[in-house]
Amino acid sequence: MNILAFGEVLIRFTVTDKMMLEQSDNLNMTTVGTGVNLLSSLAHFGYNTSILTVLPDNPLGKKAAADLRKLGISDRRLLYRGKNIGSFFVELGQGARPERVTYQDRLSSAFSLMNADDYDFEKALVGIDIVHICGISLSLTRQTRRAAMKLAELAHERNKVVCFDFNYRFSLNEQNNHEVMKKRYQSILPYVDILFGSKRDITGLLDYPNIDETKLYEQFCHDYQINIFAGSKRTFIDGKKFFEGFLFHHDKVYNSAPRELNILDRIGSGDAFASGVITGLLEKWDFNDTLEFAIANSVLAQASMNDSPIFSKEDVFHYIDSEGKNDLIR
Amino acid sequence: MNILAFGEVLIRFTVTDKMMLEQSDNLNMTTVGTGVNLLSSLAHFGYNTSILTVLPDNPLGKKAAADLRKLGISDRRLLYRGKNIGSFFVELGQGARPERVTYQDRLSSAFSLMNADDYDFEKALVGIDIVHICGISLSLTRQTRRAAMKLAELAHERNKVVCFDFNYRFSLNEQNNHEVMKKRYQSILPYVDILFGSKRDITGLLDYPNIDETKLYEQFCHDYQINIFAGSKRTFIDGKKFFEGFLFHHDKVYNSAPRELNILDRIGSGDAFASGVITGLLEKWDFNDTLEFAIANSVLAQASMNDSPIFSKEDVFHYIDSEGKNDLIR
Amino acid sequence: MNILAFGEVLIRFTVTDKMMLEQSDNLNMTTVGTGVNLLSSLAHFGYNTSILTVLPDNPLGKKAAADLRKLGISDRRLLYRGKNIGSFFVELGQGARPERVTYQDRLSSAFSLMNADDYDFEKALVGIDIVHICGISLSLTRQTRRAAMKLAELAHERNKVVCFDFNYRFSLNEQNNHEVMKKRYQSILPYVDILFGSKRDITGLLDYPNIDETKLYEQFCHDYQINIFAGSKRTFIDGKKFFEGFLFHHDKVYNSAPRELNILDRIGSGDAFASGVITGLLEKWDFNDTLEFAIANSVLAQASMNDSPIFSKEDVFHYIDSEGKNDLIR
Amino acid sequence: MNILAFGEVLIRFTVTDKMMLEQSDNLNMTTVGTGVNLLSSLAHFGYNTSILTVLPDNPLGKKAAADLRKLGISDRRLLYRGKNIGSFFVELGQGARPERVTYQDRLSSAFSLMNADDYDFEKALVGIDIVHICGISLSLTRQTRRAAMKLAELAHERNKVVCFDFNYRFSLNEQNNHEVMKKRYQSILPYVDILFGSKRDITGLLDYPNIDETKLYEQFCHDYQINIFAGSKRTFIDGKKFFEGFLFHHDKVYNSAPRELNILDRIGSGDAFASGVITGLLEKWDFNDTLEFAIANSVLAQASMNDSPIFSKEDVFHYIDSEGKNDLIR
Amino acid sequence: MNILAFGEVLIRFTVTDKMMLEQSDNLNMTTVGTGVNLLSSLAHFGYNTSILTVLPDNPLGKKAAADLRKLGISDRRLLYRGKNIGSFFVELGQGARPERVTYQDRLSSAFSLMNADDYDFEKALVGIDIVHICGISLSLTRQTRRAAMKLAELAHERNKVVCFDFNYRFSLNEQNNHEVMKKRYQSILPYVDILFGSKRDITGLLDYPNIDETKLYEQFCHDYQINIFAGSKRTFIDGKKFFEGFLFHHDKVYNSAPRELNILDRIGSGDAFASGVITGLLEKWDFNDTLEFAIANSVLAQASMNDSPIFSKEDVFHYIDSEGKNDLIR
Amino acid sequence: MNILAFGEVLIRFTVTDKMMLEQSDNLNMTTVGTGVNLLSSLAHFGYNTSILTVLPDNPLGKKAAADLRKLGISDRRLLYRGKNIGSFFVELGQGARPERVTYQDRLSSAFSLMNADDYDFEKALVGIDIVHICGISLSLTRQTRRAAMKLAELAHERNKVVCFDFNYRFSLNEQNNHEVMKKRYQSILPYVDILFGSKRDITGLLDYPNIDETKLYEQFCHDYQINIFAGSKRTFIDGKKFFEGFLFHHDKVYNSAPRELNILDRIGSGDAFASGVITGLLEKWDFNDTLEFAIANSVLAQASMNDSPIFSKEDVFHYIDSEGKNDLIR
Repeated sequence: MNILAFGEVLIRFTVTDKMMLEQSDNLNMTTVGTGVNLLSSLAHFGYNTSILTVLPDNPLGKKAAADLRKLGISDRRLLYRGKNIGSFFVELGQGARPERVTYQDRLSSAFSLMNADDYDFEKALVGIDIVHICGISLSLTRQTRRAAMKLAELAHERNKVVCFDFNYRFSLNEQNNHEVMKKRYQSILPYVDILFGSKRDITGLLDYPNIDETKLYEQFCHDYQINIFAGSKRTFIDGKKFFEGFLFHHDKVYNSAPRELNILDRIGSGDAFASGVITGLLEKWDFNDTLEFAIANSVLAQASMNDSPIFSKEDVFHYIDSEGKNDLIR
Repeated sequence: MNILAFGEVLIRFTVTDKMMLEQSDNLNMTTVGTGVNLLSSLAHFGYNTSILTVLPDNPLGKKAAADLRKLGISDRRLLYRGKNIGSFFVELGQGARPERVTYQDRLSSAFSLMNADDYDFEKALVGIDIVHICGISLSLTRQTRRAAMKLAELAHERNKVVCFDFNYRFSLNEQNNHEVMKKRYQSILPYVDILFGSKRDITGLLDYPNIDETKLYEQFCHDYQINIFAGSKRTFIDGKKFFEGFLFHHDKVYNSAPRELNILDRIGSGDAFASGVITGLLEKWDFNDTLEFAIANSVLAQASMNDSPIFSKEDVFHYIDSEGKNDLIR
Repeated sequence: MNILAFGEVLIRFTVTDKMMLEQSDNLNMTTVGTGVNLLSSLAHFGYNTSILTVLPDNPLGKKAAADLRKLGISDRRLLYRGKNIGSFFVELGQGARPERVTYQDRLSSAFSLMNADDYDFEKALVGIDIVHICGISLSLTRQTRRAAMKLAELAHERNKVVCFDFNYRFSLNEQNNHEVMKKRYQSILPYVDILFGSKRDITGLLDYPNIDETKLYEQFCHDYQINIFAGSKRTFIDGKKFFEGFLFHHDKVYNSAPRELNILDRIGSGDAFASGVITGLLEKWDFNDTLEFAIANSVLAQASMNDSPIFSKEDVFHYIDSEGKNDLIR
Repeated sequence: MNILAFGEVLIRFTVTDKMMLEQSDNLNMTTVGTGVNLLSSLAHFGYNTSILTVLPDNPLGKKAAADLRKLGISDRRLLYRGKNIGSFFVELGQGARPERVTYQDRLSSAFSLMNADDYDFEKALVGIDIVHICGISLSLTRQTRRAAMKLAELAHERNKVVCFDFNYRFSLNEQNNHEVMKKRYQSILPYVDILFGSKRDITGLLDYPNIDETKLYEQFCHDYQINIFAGSKRTFIDGKKFFEGFLFHHDKVYNSAPRELNILDRIGSGDAFASGVITGLLEKWDFNDTLEFAIANSVLAQASMNDSPIFSKEDVFHYIDSEGKNDLIR
Repeated sequence: MNILAFGEVLIRFTVTDKMMLEQSDNLNMTTVGTGVNLLSSLAHFGYNTSILTVLPDNPLGKKAAADLRKLGISDRRLLYRGKNIGSFFVELGQGARPERVTYQDRLSSAFSLMNADDYDFEKALVGIDIVHICGISLSLTRQTRRAAMKLAELAHERNKVVCFDFNYRFSLNEQNNHEVMKKRYQSILPYVDILFGSKRDITGLLDYPNIDETKLYEQFCHDYQINIFAGSKRTFIDGKKFFEGFLFHHDKVYNSAPRELNILDRIGSGDAFASGVITGLLEKWDFNDTLEFAIANSVLAQASMNDSPIFSKEDVFHYIDSEGKNDLIR
Repeated sequence: MNILAFGEVLIRFTVTDKMMLEQSDNLNMTTVGTGVNLLSSLAHFGYNTSILTVLPDNPLGKKAAADLRKLGISDRRLLYRGKNIGSFFVELGQGARPERVTYQDRLSSAFSLMNADDYDFEKALVGIDIVHICGISLSLTRQTRRAAMKLAELAHERNKVVCFDFNYRFSLNEQNNHEVMKKRYQSILPYVDILFGSKRDITGLLDYPNIDETKLYEQFCHDYQINIFAGSKRTFIDGKKFFEGFLFHHDKVYNSAPRELNILDRIGSGDAFASGVITGLLEKWDFNDTLEFAIANSVLAQASMNDSPIFSKEDVFHYIDSEGKNDLIR
């Protein structure tokens, strides 16, 4: 099974020892991104993965490519152009102190400036079964938006399974008004088969009415011919945090049991969930098992450092089977 | 608003990776102290702060001064004399394993040996609104005691708001008998406007009767013309730790709600509380809001490394508004 | 009181910052082993300890010896032969993500290849009161098995107190069938005075019937003339982990209260328990106090990094007396 | 003496342990820039320094400001706008392996996008004796160029001593043709009193004829009414590296003796030289002593980590007096 | 151009901060080996590389595979078997203090125990142009020796270019007598096209007479139909270390100029030389240029951390063109 | 051979990564001291060593004791009193930038405050062959001076070989005038057999005339019945640093050849030399071999981190035999 992701690669700088930026000069550097995280997890589940993106043509781009290979992602669709790459700083949280992310310029990265016409999408799709596109491309630049659209259209034409992730964040979209963003999402959704998002994406961004979930998702998925719509969220019970997910198919919402969270590093929880869902669909597990697997993958990912999950199927099953009670594996 | 603190600056050595001293040779070094912690927090809340203290006239003193500036504390009242500075080692705790502090010599530090007459208190008070004095000065040496007294008296005369912190610790006062220490505190309290301490300080050290808190604080504050008396403490409910505070003014005790603790580094919790209270008073918030802010600042401080709080008002409000449930800020 | 342990010394490599092996190249290295852990704890409780083992005759063996001395274990019975030492990698856990141990070759270590006849057991026993033998020796190689048997026999003859630890792990014994392993344990048990293990060791490995614990232990201890049989286990109540222990003597099972766990590093929990029990026996504390002390030592050990406990009696008593509620010692 | 620098602040990421980017994820982060380096050194020589620049209004900007204060630079002229800051990665060199710098986007930084009119230059110049402007501002953006010009003009009008640093690098100026850049430098030079650069800047950029240095500098300084023109360079003798400098005043070139280099971190050598020259001029030392001091400061800076020199005058004199032969100071 | 290497993969543990094993518990871990080093360098020169070897089927094997991918080496011929991998510790040197290597068990690694018949050599050779075999395989175990022989024979039959590296070390061959080892090398050499070694390998191991080099190499290469014979060595001139190499082809010895060494990490110098020579041959450079390139690659590798060179052709050419005098690249 | 040293134990804090105190918060901590360094080296040469000193009775004292054991020094003569221990900070040097030491309070350490009468010197001397006393004891406090005198006298009476080290530093003796210090040294020298110092100690401190060395040493050793007088120094030839030593016995000065230095960490060079000399005397090597060994030990020590040498005799011989040209040991 061959999976291609299209999306931005970012450098993540994590302040070490749970310190804050003002407290320490020691950073740990990793290479991340929605597509990267998803492919890393899928590669560790045993699938062939490759990423279509642009890295700067300098030692930093080489470093990022090396990191991608290390995660199990093929570098054969990587392009090297320009000088910049997006980045962000992470100050890890503890208890009531939240993890904090500070982005650095993503709009002048090589990826953000790459014209849609400069990609060879045809070649990139050869032999590919599933294509994943991250919704961030719709917010970044005109170039990334057009590239995402073009790829979605072409992949759909070529009968590839198209996965899409809303990934809509207000902080990145201050200058884009509601109507503009709504239209962009409306344009891409017709090409999408598997969609990751939340109820709020549909009601808040696409202006569907705030009705019963089953009805809402049925209407929405019918409108855009979406096959699978899934998402995850965190909930609070008695001062504890839990993580849970849903999956909608045809006319039914499947809900996972909530799993308690013990967070080490919160970022990438949605990507870990998405890669779990895709795995369940690829393996044709029933939807409840698929959700349980996806939630377990994300709970493990949030209990480990960095964005990109690196758990094997065995790791995830072990967690499910032991109900999280095993604290030592020899 | 200009705040001056008088007090000891200490070097803190923290064993890294939650190890104990016998387990690791790797240390992290920071510059701390009650005055330092308080001013760091107040500087991050937007006030002008400076510290009046003595540092050794060598590379270590320069390093400490650089750290103070980094925290946002002005170095214009720093004096450089002698060769020594007090220090302590910290072994971080985990669960039932307590955080452990081992002090190194504080009595032969440049600060402890500085004569009261060698300070230019008049100059230091120019333009200052609030003066903070730490009670540790009453226990350290004859010199620090006299300097603290002299400054308190002068600041009072000059109509500065005088803050004082009991900070009474038996471990440092083995050789000082009860009566001696009681007299010292009795001498300084008449100059104090805002006082930080606990009920036990009043009953145990000053020998007030162990009566109802409101009555007790009313009597005590009346005796010494204290305007504000405030303090914090930790409590245990169902095996969980909470942090809460009180503030007494005129004839009423205000109590905060308890906030759950998730401790990364416990030291400095009182200083974080005090700087929160001072901020509320400066901003003329009502006493309940002031307490809530002070407790929140301290809960955040205990969930972060090192003694000196570096949270902005926005950080503290965010914690209060999200009820500590937000675990990621982008 | 002089205690000698015979057993394997291992190098432990811990991935730093709670990362997994694929995520980081930074390791922390320590010298561990069942005997090492037990002696480290006993040395910190004030007893004279030495270890009889074989280290490689190279810089790595020298490093291991230096580490043993640092833990308070005498190096006067160390032998230097060959080139190899067993090792394992540790990826620390977090919440539902278990701590993971990956062993490297233990069968070709200098210890595993040392012939029983090449040890001078007579000399090693001079002045010794208690001898500890780890059950792993019965699984490793023919040489370690014979050495353990020979030492047990000789120590018993010389009227030393012989402690033995089942330490039976299926993962290390894949190639040894049940009957073979059962016979090995049956051969050594007659020389044992103090035994550490679990009910499952007796019913699963030695094929005793699964009856009431008191009856079972009475029968078993009578059969092998065991004076003390003790063990610990973890339990789950309301999603929390607890640690508790039992001690059987004569005709009675003593059970500790359960203590909540807040795990930093899980490995060595049994060794910390065993050293606590031995201490109680040496000090002739009553069995309930002994168990409480042993459980407390282990709870502290699991809340600290690395395998080898380094708590003093005062540390353990402090934890017991404060009911684990003190989070700062100055 | 009060010195103000106007210029870009950058984050520097250094790969630790002399590794290259592909080899390690561990970075050390510092806050640097030509103005920062110069002011850090001058602050450590005892002068009052402040920087006029723009930092992002987020935790990264706060961190940079804290670092500036730590270096002894006043934060009172700092402005907080936008989200981005320029940065670069450093891979340290060894022997024949050169130190390598990889820049990340400097053109979309808050500093690069700040309009000249948004600075309050009048206020910034109050009480200032010397203004330093870095030539990089002429290459970055239209905004930085105009701000630099405006400040130079105003400072000249106000009779401040204006220092300027060519800092012309072809790598940053690919898109700016020779004539354009030449004109920019020609426009600013009339306001300059103290100039740092090289012969090549005058002949290569400003198209002066390649004649005898004394004649050339005389002509050039006369044309632009430059008071002091100084620069440094590295030379090779018998496979060893040396560092040496020149200073031109009136009609004479002064040359320093060459000093052997033993490089730990090469970046910032020119800034260390410039701050040494400015110090000599402030102190009215003779030009030979000034050069010797400036070269010594730079040799020390190149033998230490990071860009910003932190040596005191005593440190530099000690190096000069001991001829670099003292290898231990107690 | 597709290059396959067959050989042992090792874990290297480097004590950080130039400390010795007894001084520090902090290690840096990398994945190395003669084949790994060679392929890493060739991958960074732009060729397709893959390694045929066996890694343990556990987290350590996964980590090693991730590291290989990071170096640019394809993991498609990796096999996962057993539990062990060879390893060694490195204590870096300084001046007269030599770098020190301590090996851990290499004879019970998954690679050493893999039977020749369990490899699918036919499949591994599909599409391959060059095969590299490391001579260490002749010393390790019967299994590795037979596998190396079988692969050499098959590759020769399939008209692949066979590279072989003597890599003969007495320390690993104590138990193998001279005649046995000589025969092993004699058996494999007839299949070899490009050979790396030294004069001493030919005279000392293969018992050729110690005659003039040109004559000797002519005779030797004629006997075994070797196309290229090349090697490197270090020399001392005036207390400085230099590195130089030779290459023999047909009837002529080509010698490089000596290049001064400034060593950070000495290991892998021969592998860096070999990959440089292979590159020159692939690119059909003349032999003098080839040697210069190979020596330059090795000098750079010795000036950088870890065994595996990661320099691009541009990096090497830059060093050659600048004569090692450039100490900063921006 | 049993060697006892009496002297101060210090904590050394080294700023990591060759940074200066103002640049980094990361420290490495080790336990050192003249006696510690000497015994560490002698223990690694195979002799039994123990130290007679006082450590604080707290976790820091326990840590120091653990470090001493790790170095191979017996803890059986350690006393635990008080709360303080002396310490110093080290900023490593590079090339012309000197290593810099900043001491913290040594006068209020447990060692400095311990009364001579509280030591059980008789017991400490049982079974001891050689006693080493560091001259620093004569400068610290009245207590350390009296303890050193008392021990020297008693050891001399008991026919132990008494080694003494001038270790006279003006920086520690500002308040002690020349005559006072001279008398102290004059009082202890009659008990000394082996003395370490320099010509300057004899002429500058003891006021001998500055005559020819042989004559001078003959006179001096005759006056005090000194058996061996030895010392080391650094010299400069052609911009390179060398290390060399002398040894005087009877009527002859023996001089070593100079050895080139490549310094990583300079501190402890004299202690490494002294332990080499003592070893030569113990082994009854001729004086030239003894000097060569002592200089080699010190050159290696200066090329390694930290004060305490940990080289074996084999390490030192290897350096001598290879003339420092071997840069890799496998």
